[in-house]
Amino acid sequence: MSEKPVCINDYEQQAKRILPKAVFDYFCSGADEQETLADNVAAFSRWRLYPRVLRDVSCMDLSVSILGQRVSMPICVAATAMQRMAHPDGETATVKACSSAGTGMMLSSWSTSSIEEVAEAAPDAVRWLQLYIYQDRQLTTTLVKKAEAAGYKGIFVTVDTPYLGRRRNDVRNRFQLPSHLRMANFETSDLAFSSKECYGEDSGLAVYVARAIDPSLKWEDIAWLKKITTLPVVVKGILRADDAREALKYGVDGILVSNHGARQLDGVPATIDILPEIVEAVGGKAEVFLDGGVRKGTDILKALALGAKAVFVGRPVLWGLACQGDKGVSEVLQLLREELSLAMALAGCRTVKEVDRSIVRKSVLPSRI
Amino acid sequence: MSEKPVCINDYEQQAKRILPKAVFDYFCSGADEQETLADNVAAFSRWRLYPRVLRDVSCMDLSVSILGQRVSMPICVAATAMQRMAHPDGETATVKACSSAGTGMMLSSWSTSSIEEVAEAAPDAVRWLQLYIYQDRQLTTTLVKKAEAAGYKGIFVTVDTPYLGRRRNDVRNRFQLPSHLRMANFETSDLAFSSKECYGEDSGLAVYVARAIDPSLKWEDIAWLKKITTLPVVVKGILRADDAREALKYGVDGILVSNHGARQLDGVPATIDILPEIVEAVGGKAEVFLDGGVRKGTDILKALALGAKAVFVGRPVLWGLACQGDKGVSEVLQLLREELSLAMALAGCRTVKEVDRSIVRKSVLPSRI
Amino acid sequence: MSEKPVCINDYEQQAKRILPKAVFDYFCSGADEQETLADNVAAFSRWRLYPRVLRDVSCMDLSVSILGQRVSMPICVAATAMQRMAHPDGETATVKACSSAGTGMMLSSWSTSSIEEVAEAAPDAVRWLQLYIYQDRQLTTTLVKKAEAAGYKGIFVTVDTPYLGRRRNDVRNRFQLPSHLRMANFETSDLAFSSKECYGEDSGLAVYVARAIDPSLKWEDIAWLKKITTLPVVVKGILRADDAREALKYGVDGILVSNHGARQLDGVPATIDILPEIVEAVGGKAEVFLDGGVRKGTDILKALALGAKAVFVGRPVLWGLACQGDKGVSEVLQLLREELSLAMALAGCRTVKEVDRSIVRKSVLPSRI
Amino acid sequence: MSEKPVCINDYEQQAKRILPKAVFDYFCSGADEQETLADNVAAFSRWRLYPRVLRDVSCMDLSVSILGQRVSMPICVAATAMQRMAHPDGETATVKACSSAGTGMMLSSWSTSSIEEVAEAAPDAVRWLQLYIYQDRQLTTTLVKKAEAAGYKGIFVTVDTPYLGRRRNDVRNRFQLPSHLRMANFETSDLAFSSKECYGEDSGLAVYVARAIDPSLKWEDIAWLKKITTLPVVVKGILRADDAREALKYGVDGILVSNHGARQLDGVPATIDILPEIVEAVGGKAEVFLDGGVRKGTDILKALALGAKAVFVGRPVLWGLACQGDKGVSEVLQLLREELSLAMALAGCRTVKEVDRSIVRKSVLPSRI
Repeated sequence: MSEKPVCINDYEQQAKRILPKAVFDYFCSGADEQETLADNVAAFSRWRLYPRVLRDVSCMDLSVSILGQRVSMPICVAATAMQRMAHPDGETATVKACSSAGTGMMLSSWSTSSIEEVAEAAPDAVRWLQLYIYQDRQLTTTLVKKAEAAGYKGIFVTVDTPYLGRRRNDVRNRFQLPSHLRMANFETSDLAFSSKECYGEDSGLAVYVARAIDPSLKWEDIAWLKKITTLPVVVKGILRADDAREALKYGVDGILVSNHGARQLDGVPATIDILPEIVEAVGGKAEVFLDGGVRKGTDILKALALGAKAVFVGRPVLWGLACQGDKGVSEVLQLLREELSLAMALAGCRTVKEVDRSIVRKSVLPSRI
Repeated sequence: MSEKPVCINDYEQQAKRILPKAVFDYFCSGADEQETLADNVAAFSRWRLYPRVLRDVSCMDLSVSILGQRVSMPICVAATAMQRMAHPDGETATVKACSSAGTGMMLSSWSTSSIEEVAEAAPDAVRWLQLYIYQDRQLTTTLVKKAEAAGYKGIFVTVDTPYLGRRRNDVRNRFQLPSHLRMANFETSDLAFSSKECYGEDSGLAVYVARAIDPSLKWEDIAWLKKITTLPVVVKGILRADDAREALKYGVDGILVSNHGARQLDGVPATIDILPEIVEAVGGKAEVFLDGGVRKGTDILKALALGAKAVFVGRPVLWGLACQGDKGVSEVLQLLREELSLAMALAGCRTVKEVDRSIVRKSVLPSRI
Repeated sequence: MSEKPVCINDYEQQAKRILPKAVFDYFCSGADEQETLADNVAAFSRWRLYPRVLRDVSCMDLSVSILGQRVSMPICVAATAMQRMAHPDGETATVKACSSAGTGMMLSSWSTSSIEEVAEAAPDAVRWLQLYIYQDRQLTTTLVKKAEAAGYKGIFVTVDTPYLGRRRNDVRNRFQLPSHLRMANFETSDLAFSSKECYGEDSGLAVYVARAIDPSLKWEDIAWLKKITTLPVVVKGILRADDAREALKYGVDGILVSNHGARQLDGVPATIDILPEIVEAVGGKAEVFLDGGVRKGTDILKALALGAKAVFVGRPVLWGLACQGDKGVSEVLQLLREELSLAMALAGCRTVKEVDRSIVRKSVLPSRI
Repeated sequence: MSEKPVCINDYEQQAKRILPKAVFDYFCSGADEQETLADNVAAFSRWRLYPRVLRDVSCMDLSVSILGQRVSMPICVAATAMQRMAHPDGETATVKACSSAGTGMMLSSWSTSSIEEVAEAAPDAVRWLQLYIYQDRQLTTTLVKKAEAAGYKGIFVTVDTPYLGRRRNDVRNRFQLPSHLRMANFETSDLAFSSKECYGEDSGLAVYVARAIDPSLKWEDIAWLKKITTLPVVVKGILRADDAREALKYGVDGILVSNHGARQLDGVPATIDILPEIVEAVGGKAEVFLDGGVRKGTDILKALALGAKAVFVGRPVLWGLACQGDKGVSEVLQLLREELSLAMALAGCRTVKEVDRSIVRKSVLPSRI
């Protein structure tokens, strides 16, 4: 490595040099024209910060509670699939870095390390399972039960993926898992996305989803999920206030404002722009989180100010993982922590609780145009 | 073909490589500074989508009725002139693809395949005739009567072309029809735009219009048209709410919100930006359609949400036609259908009827800037 | 000339190739950062056109009255200084082209052809004198009397130039008149800007203005001007509604909304953006004109719709003059006339009077971004 | 020097060629993504000028009073640290240029010339001390007392730097003072930032601040400062109206609206955009100043119109200093004075008092996009 990275973008540039093109494309792409992909990042710069001065910021405390678990900072790791494509250690590296950082990791259903392997790699880490509901409900139940057994602390159920968004690069690349890898939580090669068959002229993963994931999902399925588990349930992928209110009726414990990293429906708003109306609709009756476009400490500060309890970061973690395994993930988490701490201090906020709505205002234009 | 196209823009790039410059220029150019040409496309990205989740989208139905005819999807082929410039099979290839796709084709008065040839190529296809009203009303009546006789299902009368818009590339290229082609619905070489004369330093087509098309057109001529035909009449080229209301007084069956692909008056709004006020003015008393700038499934979803019954696509069809004749058009229609179906599913809409106004909101800025 | 120009920008490109850099720079530059220079042009594209259809536009009449004189179109030639730098025939070529086109020419005080020469070159042309008020009022009076004697039809008195705006290129170029030229309306070489002295590290013209032009100008001087002439007086350079109302108190016959081609105070609004409030303030009590950024027919249509009686074009005329003398100016005027006529027809306006406020609306964004 | 600079940007370009990269980077960088750095400059162009004409601007007076001292123009020199990095004469060159120009200089606590040296270099110049409050209050008091003894006329206490903003280039460069230099107001090499130690993988200055500057600063410390000095106190770094009102409670004499040259918290608004609400909150009860992004005369005119009593310029002075020492600073100050004088005259304002709120309005878009 020629030079130590000083920002998340540096990690991305390094990862781009390291990773095979089809893998980098898979991780970084958004759907269709990638409008929302760009907007997720750009939108943060349309929110301006209004810092308070002279507040005695000699002692900073960034810790928060998430679904009843204390973590050292309001920055957690989002579920991203098939992390062994980024680094041989994959999800086990990531969870070790989370454990060191004292923060939580959301594990993808489509992990290349199993639910149990990840738990064993870092028994003390706060871990949650991201859940895809499969057409096969017995299989789905098994995933949940495995998570419970392995000490996971909650289920983030994805609700925005009845079908896979069209990511043009994956179609061009006829994206498949490298042949030495498989989704570790499934038995059959079909379900493990490790079949050697050809998926035609499409993204292999899009075909996988069409075959296995349930497009008939409806609110009643959230009720079913709540019934089969004692863990807290967070719906992942809410972008409307009415859907947030609907989720409350079904007793969800949290709402993750997410557009799936801009990988599902292109043209939806940036998550930071949506967040305020969701927070208002929820009215404190569940925890609200955000992912999408988070790249620096001030982004996180803005999300907190607009009512998020914590943010989840996906791609930045992958770039760190690609660069240096668990050390890279640790560096990324440490960088974001330091940036957030500095941003909070410069804004006059000593704790996450002191981050109030008055420190951000929306502007029509981004800072840079 | 080196690589299978994955989006409409890929077809455009291929077509640009294949077509003679003057032909590509003719098809792709807009008027004057081409501001509206760019805006037609860019405007879609200023409308953001607000998808609903958990709606059971396992069964999708995209079919709609247009002027009483059922088509398989709300995506029809717009009239574009002289399609044999794009491919030797011209309009007959296009209509075959429409027939296969189960959707409708609007045939240009200026087609290089005749009204009858197109009907014979696909007798079962839903076909409409785009009509220019000529100074010679007898000639105009003949066109309408031919369409009636050949089983066309409606007349889209162009109202925005008393003179031809100034398309600078066509002026530079002294645009004329290639010498082996002619407008197939006219007898004389003058009217068939196949005269060998030189049109001076201007676009040949602009001169043609000035000589043949009637610039004195007024609302009474719509009454006349309604009188001479039993077919439904749609006015094509409405951009003002008061004009839409005026059209209703004359008993039109539909209104096509169109700026003629940005080829007439430059500086007019993008059609998607105009659509809502036209829909409101019409108040359900006629069918409202849109063309202009449609390039992907989410564009169509936005148009439907804002009240269009269907959209018409012009240039994308030409690019497909240029690439591979009827197979290329079929691919383009199939691509748009799949994109729309996916976009609807991801937005929680199972049918066109379920696409409601709440899933789009206008933003000041485009997603990308 | 390799290719016939099809738009004003083509003329500019040709002129740039033909003219010495310092001359081209002088003509095209704006003040300081040239923000207003860019905005004058860009602002037009923020106003969208809403055309009416089906209005019988077979007969078009573009003529208007300006200060009591009938001209063939609402497009006149703005005063630009020292036109013999652009072409050996200078202002006499310009006035001949105006005469042929049936429109009016505003002659600069700083012309390189005298007031009388210009009159003799085109006795029938509608001509007005642009007037700088010199510190020497006797000299100023002489200019006015010469114009009266030579049959000029009005005085456009510049009110925005107590000092010359800082045009960085002119400072870099140490701009002076080429040695074979002089301002033709003055006797001494100092006043004729033909002294062979060096003007130090500044624009020579800025030094000239500081020495000769009166920075103490005030509203009473307008009263004085009205008293010494029987010609109509137009104040040139108004950008505020209160100043427009003040001008009415002093009995002016017209107001030219102008920012001096963005050459005086940088950061002022584009003239088209200012026009509506000036028109409202004037309330029909004087004629209102506009210059600045006019490059095409739709620009003119927008200015008319917002209440301008006519527009004045400066740089486009210079580019035509540089390319081909009076023939070039004629071409430019003809091009603009055709573009305006077409734009009016496509907007459903047969006469300038029919161009009403409803055909334009302001948008936040330009069409292209 | 190849060509005489005609604008501040020319000085910056020259300085960039002259200075070592790490030094240029230190002076020009902003925090994080440098969004606010760009916005500080860009924001000025979103404010449009509405000039008055015909106001007799033959006599211009730019002088103003600042904290009771008369200066020749509302343009003063902002505190910038370690000026001997820019030129061997450092702060003594700057103060001489200020003295010649008849304007005031704010000296940085972190100057490479001592408080006394600067006083001796220009005894008659209006000088103020920028104060960092150190963890060591005795040391802080000493700085204040030195300033009093050396005839400084006020204290500008920085309130936005409990920690140093993260300037990525300084981290990459492991920024330290060149080994022949030291902060001149401190005894020990640690406090003088001249220790030869390595600061690890961080900006050396960031480490310096973390060790020496007091992050526990609160409003009561302003009361303390007021108590230990008889000089006027200005709080430097206010960006919120409520903080401005709080400052008034503590009896401050002035408020400097500043985002520290965009070097502390990235994502805060441009200072010119914040200024109006601060001015309104202060309601004339203290003097309000602005720094940040000032690059030309019209910027200053806009700041005055929005209620600033004067502006402070930092980087432009450094570029002049780097180019030619005190002569370069003099040129920069003279250039800004001439630009402001011309801008005022062209806007119809003869004195700073005549610069009223009506001559600026905010626009959504910058002039250039």
